[in-house]
Amino acid sequence: MTLATPAGYRALDDASLRDFLAGLPDLRDRLGGRPPDWSIIEVGDGNLNLVFLIDGPEGSLCVKQSLPYVRAAGESWPLPLDRAFFEQSYYRAVAPYSEGLTPRFFYYQPELYAIVMERLSPHIILRRGLIEGRRYPGAAAAVAEFAARSTFATSDFGATLEEKAELMSTFARNTSLIRITAEVVFTDPLANSPRNRWTSPALDGLAAEFRADSALKVTVAEWGRRFLTEAQALIHGDLHTGSVMVTETDTRVMDPEFAFVGPIGFDIGAFIANLVMNAIAQAGHATPGDDRKAEADWVLSQVPVFWDTFSSRFLALWDEKARGDAYPPAMFSNPGDAAVLAGARKAFVDRLFADAIGYAGVKTIRRILGFAHNADFELIADPARRAPLEAKSARLARTFLLEPHSFRTPDDIVAAVKAL
Amino acid sequence: MTLATPAGYRALDDASLRDFLAGLPDLRDRLGGRPPDWSIIEVGDGNLNLVFLIDGPEGSLCVKQSLPYVRAAGESWPLPLDRAFFEQSYYRAVAPYSEGLTPRFFYYQPELYAIVMERLSPHIILRRGLIEGRRYPGAAAAVAEFAARSTFATSDFGATLEEKAELMSTFARNTSLIRITAEVVFTDPLANSPRNRWTSPALDGLAAEFRADSALKVTVAEWGRRFLTEAQALIHGDLHTGSVMVTETDTRVMDPEFAFVGPIGFDIGAFIANLVMNAIAQAGHATPGDDRKAEADWVLSQVPVFWDTFSSRFLALWDEKARGDAYPPAMFSNPGDAAVLAGARKAFVDRLFADAIGYAGVKTIRRILGFAHNADFELIADPARRAPLEAKSARLARTFLLEPHSFRTPDDIVAAVKAL
Ligand SMILES: Nc1ncnc2c1ncn2[C@@H]1O[C@H](COP(=O)(O)OP(=O)(O)OP(=O)(O)O)[C@@H](O)[C@H]1O
Ligand SMILES: Nc1ncnc2c1ncn2[C@@H]1O[C@H](COP(=O)(O)OP(=O)(O)OP(=O)(O)O)[C@@H](O)[C@H]1O
Repeated sequence: MTLATPAGYRALDDASLRDFLAGLPDLRDRLGGRPPDWSIIEVGDGNLNLVFLIDGPEGSLCVKQSLPYVRAAGESWPLPLDRAFFEQSYYRAVAPYSEGLTPRFFYYQPELYAIVMERLSPHIILRRGLIEGRRYPGAAAAVAEFAARSTFATSDFGATLEEKAELMSTFARNTSLIRITAEVVFTDPLANSPRNRWTSPALDGLAAEFRADSALKVTVAEWGRRFLTEAQALIHGDLHTGSVMVTETDTRVMDPEFAFVGPIGFDIGAFIANLVMNAIAQAGHATPGDDRKAEADWVLSQVPVFWDTFSSRFLALWDEKARGDAYPPAMFSNPGDAAVLAGARKAFVDRLFADAIGYAGVKTIRRILGFAHNADFELIADPARRAPLEAKSARLARTFLLEPHSFRTPDDIVAAVKAL
Repeated sequence: MTLATPAGYRALDDASLRDFLAGLPDLRDRLGGRPPDWSIIEVGDGNLNLVFLIDGPEGSLCVKQSLPYVRAAGESWPLPLDRAFFEQSYYRAVAPYSEGLTPRFFYYQPELYAIVMERLSPHIILRRGLIEGRRYPGAAAAVAEFAARSTFATSDFGATLEEKAELMSTFARNTSLIRITAEVVFTDPLANSPRNRWTSPALDGLAAEFRADSALKVTVAEWGRRFLTEAQALIHGDLHTGSVMVTETDTRVMDPEFAFVGPIGFDIGAFIANLVMNAIAQAGHATPGDDRKAEADWVLSQVPVFWDTFSSRFLALWDEKARGDAYPPAMFSNPGDAAVLAGARKAFVDRLFADAIGYAGVKTIRRILGFAHNADFELIADPARRAPLEAKSARLARTFLLEPHSFRTPDDIVAAVKAL
């Protein structure tokens, strides 16, 4: 099957990528030497795109290109190319607030739907490092810092309504990926979708039970409604531990192709859910010499680090850089207003936490009963070891959704995981 | 002062309007006769635009054209012309759902920012009719029907996310009018803005008291935040009794230039607030022969009519025409789901009522302490009669905002007004 693609588009290969970069003097200089001296490998282990790493005598680059279908599903699931446009739009939009926290963006070629960016090295995907039992002391705080800066700056607290309208107008058109999230995250996992899968037969009962739980489904649907309507800020849209690359000392948020103006708690909840899943999965990666209990505790301890950093940075920015049209400073010029205003800001951030709990529940269930699973669990080869850990995660997620008031602080999450 | 306007734009006058219409065969035929036979009057008593009524031997038309400034404030308050673009975009977007409930839309001339539509006759503005003590038995239900149909069809329940994204992308750019609402409705009235005015000195104390009320201001600011972020459906944006034209038997919603994808409760609250203000103002229009008590009661009785019609129609549409991506039918295919789903829908509509109460509070205060006042009160010439009625309205509005849980049904509103 051949998919129709716009004129000018071709999926890059070694030769055409070499030509493409050779034609861009700045990037050619970055690599150094001559095109035949460059080594190129394709590493797109992801679900959607081609990713090339290019090494030259003087430097390196990374090129990410959209394919006209969902790579993980094959050409039978076509997907518009324009996600690369939104990915680079996101990098550009957050660049003023994200220095050093994303790969540096260099160039976008619109006909090829190809992004040229900094090649991160020796970074690896955070999720992978955690699965291997490593620790990244600064990672959770860096991701929180990134989320606080980028969402504050693009919210109605940090941006004028004209600036935010521009973002809404642009990113509202990222419908192919918003649709994937709506379906694959919110709709499918508790419906009868042929795209769903789970560790079977061990979790057949759990899957049936969840699908029969009308209250759970209505709660997930309500979070789905909010996902589609709460245009709070430009969010990353897929902020899990697989969208973060790290070394021991450096952290970068990448892969923002799902970006749109949506609920901030969706990003926060995604990251929390993925830390929690990794912590629960650790037991499945135990070896005779390492039961992974300490690693699990450490990963879990990053949940409060992440939330506390995010919330305190968001509030600090609101204090220092309020210039938007929501809670406009002009309304609060009396000395007596300060305490009440601070209380309202705190209440808003507390609601973001409540939102994060809800979205964390949704995002966990979809990784266990839906289409795209997490390496945290998938790499536990033995289903007899994997299934009980997945079940624990799924049941905790259901508690997030049906008993949200039990989770008022990140320590409540830590305690609940330890009690499992 | 001359304002820069795009090439091709000129404010229409009798002669140029005649030429313009003469060049449009369909519209020329509607009017009949020859251009010199047409009578043209300009009736824009509004705040923002030129409105011409054109009568020919065979028919009539209405032409509404943007001016490059706020008419009510003069050329010192410039305003982009593009509001006419959004007004016609709105008419087109809701046309499939609004037949007979808006003026019929005929034509848009983009360079002139001029809309040609059905001339309503012998319709008058609903607010004006109510001030004169008349009754319009079907008006509240018709506006409710219009609001239910147009918001349902453009919400994530009635539209696909791609359809809604198109609306968001277009209407997010209506920033000049969204800014006017943000400032004039939410920010200014409780801040120290030179645009504010109130019945002085009678209400000086009330104005100062409200401005010193930090809790009230924070509550208004929170509704302002929601106004800017809750992208629920394409809303009219200014759905008060002055945006409705009526006869005894026909009702049309017009003047949707403030339209954008926002919170449904904003429209609902606007209409409720304006009914309530009119009811409270009736005493100020009493004459020796008519104390207006019966009219006040009748106007107030339209609040439950309006809400009950809106909510039951919205729920009925949700039952019959669910095709959006929020609460997707695919998730609720078990027989056991129906009751829980119905409960969730009811809960959503109840939250719209709560939203309406909040926005009604905001919209009332701005009419008493802010820039644009209502004829309901303004036409009470004697400040000694007017001020106490305005004060009653403002205090009720404050209760809407600070004690929202006292208002769970429209009957609670009716009871509160009667208890004033
Ligand atoms: N800037 C970079 N520097 C180095 N390696 C990178 C860079 N960007 C991506 N990679 C590598 O390529 C892989 C896939 O990248 P990315 O996640 O952006 O693609 P994707 O197709 O969107 O994947 P997914 O479907 O998993 O989200 C990453 O896991 C990482 O190993
Ligand atoms: N289609 C119509 N048929 C007949 N009269 C109309 C029509 N449209 C507008 N009018 C008259 O023109 C007046 C102003 O119209 P409209 O409210 O649309 O303009 P505006 O400048 O936006 O006013 P405002 O600032 O009050 O909202 C109306 O009050 C009404 O009397």
